[in-house]
Amino acid sequence: MKTLMKFALPAALIALPAMGMAQEAEVPAAVPTDVVFILNSLLFLVGGFLVFFMAAGFAMLEAGLVRSKNVAMQLTKNMALFGLAAIFYYLIGYNLMYPLGTWSVEGVLSGLFGPGVLEAVGVTADAADDYGYASTGSDFFFQLMFCAATASIVSGTLAERIKLWPFLVFTIVLTGIIYPFTASWTWGGGFVGEAGFSDFAGSTIVHSVGGWAALTGAIILGPRLGKYKDGKTIPMPGSNLTLATLGTFILWLGWFGFNGGSQLAMGSVGDVADVSRIFSNTNAAAAGGVVAALILTQIMYKKPDLTMILNGALAGLVSITAEPLTPSLGAATLIGAVGGVIVVFAVPFLDKLKIDDVVGAIPVHLIAGIWGTIAVVFTNGDASLGAQLYGIFVIGAATIVMSGVVWFILKAVMGLRVDEETEINGLDMAELGMEAYPEFTNG
Amino acid sequence: MKTLMKFALPAALIALPAMGMAQEAEVPAAVPTDVVFILNSLLFLVGGFLVFFMAAGFAMLEAGLVRSKNVAMQLTKNMALFGLAAIFYYLIGYNLMYPLGTWSVEGVLSGLFGPGVLEAVGVTADAADDYGYASTGSDFFFQLMFCAATASIVSGTLAERIKLWPFLVFTIVLTGIIYPFTASWTWGGGFVGEAGFSDFAGSTIVHSVGGWAALTGAIILGPRLGKYKDGKTIPMPGSNLTLATLGTFILWLGWFGFNGGSQLAMGSVGDVADVSRIFSNTNAAAAGGVVAALILTQIMYKKPDLTMILNGALAGLVSITAEPLTPSLGAATLIGAVGGVIVVFAVPFLDKLKIDDVVGAIPVHLIAGIWGTIAVVFTNGDASLGAQLYGIFVIGAATIVMSGVVWFILKAVMGLRVDEETEINGLDMAELGMEAYPEFTNG
Amino acid sequence: MKTLMKFALPAALIALPAMGMAQEAEVPAAVPTDVVFILNSLLFLVGGFLVFFMAAGFAMLEAGLVRSKNVAMQLTKNMALFGLAAIFYYLIGYNLMYPLGTWSVEGVLSGLFGPGVLEAVGVTADAADDYGYASTGSDFFFQLMFCAATASIVSGTLAERIKLWPFLVFTIVLTGIIYPFTASWTWGGGFVGEAGFSDFAGSTIVHSVGGWAALTGAIILGPRLGKYKDGKTIPMPGSNLTLATLGTFILWLGWFGFNGGSQLAMGSVGDVADVSRIFSNTNAAAAGGVVAALILTQIMYKKPDLTMILNGALAGLVSITAEPLTPSLGAATLIGAVGGVIVVFAVPFLDKLKIDDVVGAIPVHLIAGIWGTIAVVFTNGDASLGAQLYGIFVIGAATIVMSGVVWFILKAVMGLRVDEETEINGLDMAELGMEAYPEFTNG
Repeated sequence: MKTLMKFALPAALIALPAMGMAQEAEVPAAVPTDVVFILNSLLFLVGGFLVFFMAAGFAMLEAGLVRSKNVAMQLTKNMALFGLAAIFYYLIGYNLMYPLGTWSVEGVLSGLFGPGVLEAVGVTADAADDYGYASTGSDFFFQLMFCAATASIVSGTLAERIKLWPFLVFTIVLTGIIYPFTASWTWGGGFVGEAGFSDFAGSTIVHSVGGWAALTGAIILGPRLGKYKDGKTIPMPGSNLTLATLGTFILWLGWFGFNGGSQLAMGSVGDVADVSRIFSNTNAAAAGGVVAALILTQIMYKKPDLTMILNGALAGLVSITAEPLTPSLGAATLIGAVGGVIVVFAVPFLDKLKIDDVVGAIPVHLIAGIWGTIAVVFTNGDASLGAQLYGIFVIGAATIVMSGVVWFILKAVMGLRVDEETEINGLDMAELGMEAYPEFTNG
Repeated sequence: MKTLMKFALPAALIALPAMGMAQEAEVPAAVPTDVVFILNSLLFLVGGFLVFFMAAGFAMLEAGLVRSKNVAMQLTKNMALFGLAAIFYYLIGYNLMYPLGTWSVEGVLSGLFGPGVLEAVGVTADAADDYGYASTGSDFFFQLMFCAATASIVSGTLAERIKLWPFLVFTIVLTGIIYPFTASWTWGGGFVGEAGFSDFAGSTIVHSVGGWAALTGAIILGPRLGKYKDGKTIPMPGSNLTLATLGTFILWLGWFGFNGGSQLAMGSVGDVADVSRIFSNTNAAAAGGVVAALILTQIMYKKPDLTMILNGALAGLVSITAEPLTPSLGAATLIGAVGGVIVVFAVPFLDKLKIDDVVGAIPVHLIAGIWGTIAVVFTNGDASLGAQLYGIFVIGAATIVMSGVVWFILKAVMGLRVDEETEINGLDMAELGMEAYPEFTNG
Repeated sequence: MKTLMKFALPAALIALPAMGMAQEAEVPAAVPTDVVFILNSLLFLVGGFLVFFMAAGFAMLEAGLVRSKNVAMQLTKNMALFGLAAIFYYLIGYNLMYPLGTWSVEGVLSGLFGPGVLEAVGVTADAADDYGYASTGSDFFFQLMFCAATASIVSGTLAERIKLWPFLVFTIVLTGIIYPFTASWTWGGGFVGEAGFSDFAGSTIVHSVGGWAALTGAIILGPRLGKYKDGKTIPMPGSNLTLATLGTFILWLGWFGFNGGSQLAMGSVGDVADVSRIFSNTNAAAAGGVVAALILTQIMYKKPDLTMILNGALAGLVSITAEPLTPSLGAATLIGAVGGVIVVFAVPFLDKLKIDDVVGAIPVHLIAGIWGTIAVVFTNGDASLGAQLYGIFVIGAATIVMSGVVWFILKAVMGLRVDEETEINGLDMAELGMEAYPEFTNG
């Protein structure tokens, strides 16, 4: 056994892992049901805090990729959106996403504003028979983080020109209604899942939904002033690539929780082996995205492009999210590499369409998300291309319609865009009255 | 079961989580005692490394909120205080905090400088009967991180003017003696706990103690030069709000370990459900603090204030720390929101008193800590307002007296404050001979 | 029991941790074998994601310690090396390191380019009898991160002057062949381990190998232009000490996984107690390194040196890596403190030899790694000084020869060094066409 060799553990140690009196009696093999419950809950908790940390990753990535005059605003948006997502997913979203009993419109409506969602937590001995397979609190914690991630995707695309408050109102609708509603169609027992759509951890359900909402917003909002001039795209380089790199590494770290936790169980040998495979495949796909973007930008531009490499890593991660379990390591690497290639071509393509995506979130989360959802059919025999395309289409169309309506209402009621002077001077001084780096920027 | 729906796990999978031969025999429910020990220890280890990372959070928060000329010194203080806390909590504090047997002055004294604290670790089969409920090493690791957090609170308040070495000597006394001594009164089986004082993870015992020590120091040290002029408070904005935001996210992450680990057990269905609820409530309180500070600063100043929002998140976290288990999600959100409100009012109030708290640690850790300790009575039927106030008073008074004495001695013997020229030019060049950002600062 | 006191848990709670019907029957003590498998795998997964995050730590440390004109390149190298390490450790290294069956040249060769390394993962009920002691996926994930860490060490030393592509080709050889090959001599059941060499988590096998590869490269590459002039060493201060400090904290965090995970088992009371002790000792050694460097630089230079303190922490961590289990907390602190002392003396010593190590990786990883490997004999009765020196020598010599050959070939074929103008203007604009901080640098 090659895995046993690191310190040449004697076989006896492995055969007799338990101690004391157990050496007399035979050591049992089966996992007690209480331990299954504990381990499943633990997976949600560890997965959940890793996905939580992705909020920091998004914040650093976006703060690094905007210009310094808009950094404090971008940080404010990221902190505020997470706070609002937590509150509105609790108030509305969670019950909407996982209606009690079979999914139905009535079930969804009756679950809204119901009793506190964690009432079932804190199981006593009397309730031993129906305590389910993991604690409600751990499940809520884990699911909430996915919802918040969806909102984080939007903030990057629309940076440097959207007003704070309409953006935050959109976040409330997205995290309280749009995401939970569309997600329930697959993960809540709804009709898209029934149709055979397979999206393990959310290439479509999380990432593309965020991407569609961002795309709709970007089109309605329009590009930054001066971004497209005389048919040319004017580069507006990010102010801090160190932080952008840090953000990418943090997101990569969080993704182990995002995909690994989506196994939803760790209480059996098979489940933990699957979680392990998911961790390895997730890492392989990110590596594939990095190397693909590195080589491709070297070939195309004669110089590697760091921001493309960072987005390549993220695109690799998004690509493997729909199916991180069934691919081999090699297949996972290739699936991620295609994601990296997508980024390198999609970023300039969007610019050609004059869709201004400040951080590249649409190529990374939407386009690589679509790719990843389709790629499921290559390694998972249970998935069909038809069902995958159906899910991509239905969830995409619904997100476009719903977020389009919200964006238009917000535009009419509040206005979406800061005025020209504010945009030129930066949102930080005009909207917040503070700068992220008051001592550094050179005049 | 809504928690089961994410991938519509077939009921059979859940009913038969164990594999192999277990399908023949009945799968047991009970958690074997060895597994309880392992899971409890694991909770301390995971909780401990999360709380460890809070040291990085404090360092980034403080480095982001001081001016660039003092950043390298602030980093040096944070790195050095952690190193010293680790050494002196080991040498003195741990034995002082958890005296062997019943708590008594004699027990405390006899425990000092006793045998190495981890001697009990590495249990053998012979010791199976008395191996307790978690490994000593994991408990020490977890408790140490709480002690270090207490010291981290102080460094922010006193930034930009205190000399390095007196600050470090204070850290030694705080982590070796003051914190462990006052903490033992509740967590070590002492008289405050006996009186019914309830402080789950340390709103008072950790955060307010750090806050009182900081407040005492701030009064004795005096404000920064030019901070208060002609009755006005002169703003001295932090040099790097991106890092301050990163620090806040890291602290938020670490708090899951801080509060969740303080359940002290994960080896039963009830315990893991409680840990899960704590994670969710901790997150909800932080979100409440964020949103309260966001809305309140918008209303009061017409502009949201990012540093208030960051401190609002932290105040929310401190507020829920005394009782993260019994509140509903809604109550946790409200308790945290009050913390956010406290910050927005307390920061200018301290300035009115000419108490110069560079990073806002006194509002966040002391005042929100008092609030959180009182708020226990709203959701925990076992707590009484009298006992809570008693604990707040006794621990506060003791911390003020002890740290006041130490600060005065240090002032007399070593001097606390750098000279005027050093303060004006920044501590970095004068005291360290290096700059944090040698290529960036303008002018 | 002092560990039980935090909230004065009633004894009854501890005696009856399991719930429900278990109260009737006797609660068993032994850990079921399936649970052992799950917990061992979980240790690899948690340890693995912590070690993964060290990649971010290295990136921030190095980005903070180079001058701003080379930061984007340093970030690119760190991101790219991790991607390549993941791919080539999978393609070649893992099978090379853990040959199937007994270690032999034939076994190694036959394992190369073998079937996908995770084929054994995803155990079914039929395979219950031979599922080993942890999932292959978790083991691969964990081992890969060690391999990547080795490559990260090299990038810092050679910063600011080496070309991107030859560096990346070296990384491929190092992670695909050199590291796995030399590591297999101990951890893969090879002749160095047979000779009694003891290196728990890799002071020599990981850190010194990275250090030797870096040293060989530094000598062949030569120092930066202007670094040594008229017998003097010209200081070239790092551009961002906040990020360097963050990187150090992240590495410290990751080290709990690095050393703790190397226990390789968490499925028994004894194992988890050992993991706990390792966590505590690892932390103590880092603290010792911090405090030693703090005091020593104060004494020697009259001013504490932050970069020395950061490297002191890391040297403390490297020093304890060869044996983090057997020392007492006090011994661990002292072993780490010696590491801190080593750094303070070795950094100027290397400069005297005109070996230009930009971030201090050779003192930290190579010299402290040698010290840590020797220090094993002080606390581990099973280790002999002869075997330790033998391992240090054999692995060091092999690494020097192999990496020397690769560096020379790369120098001849591709050229190692950027041209003078590029070096003076910075690698970022010349090689990447972008800057890390385009809005900040003055002049």
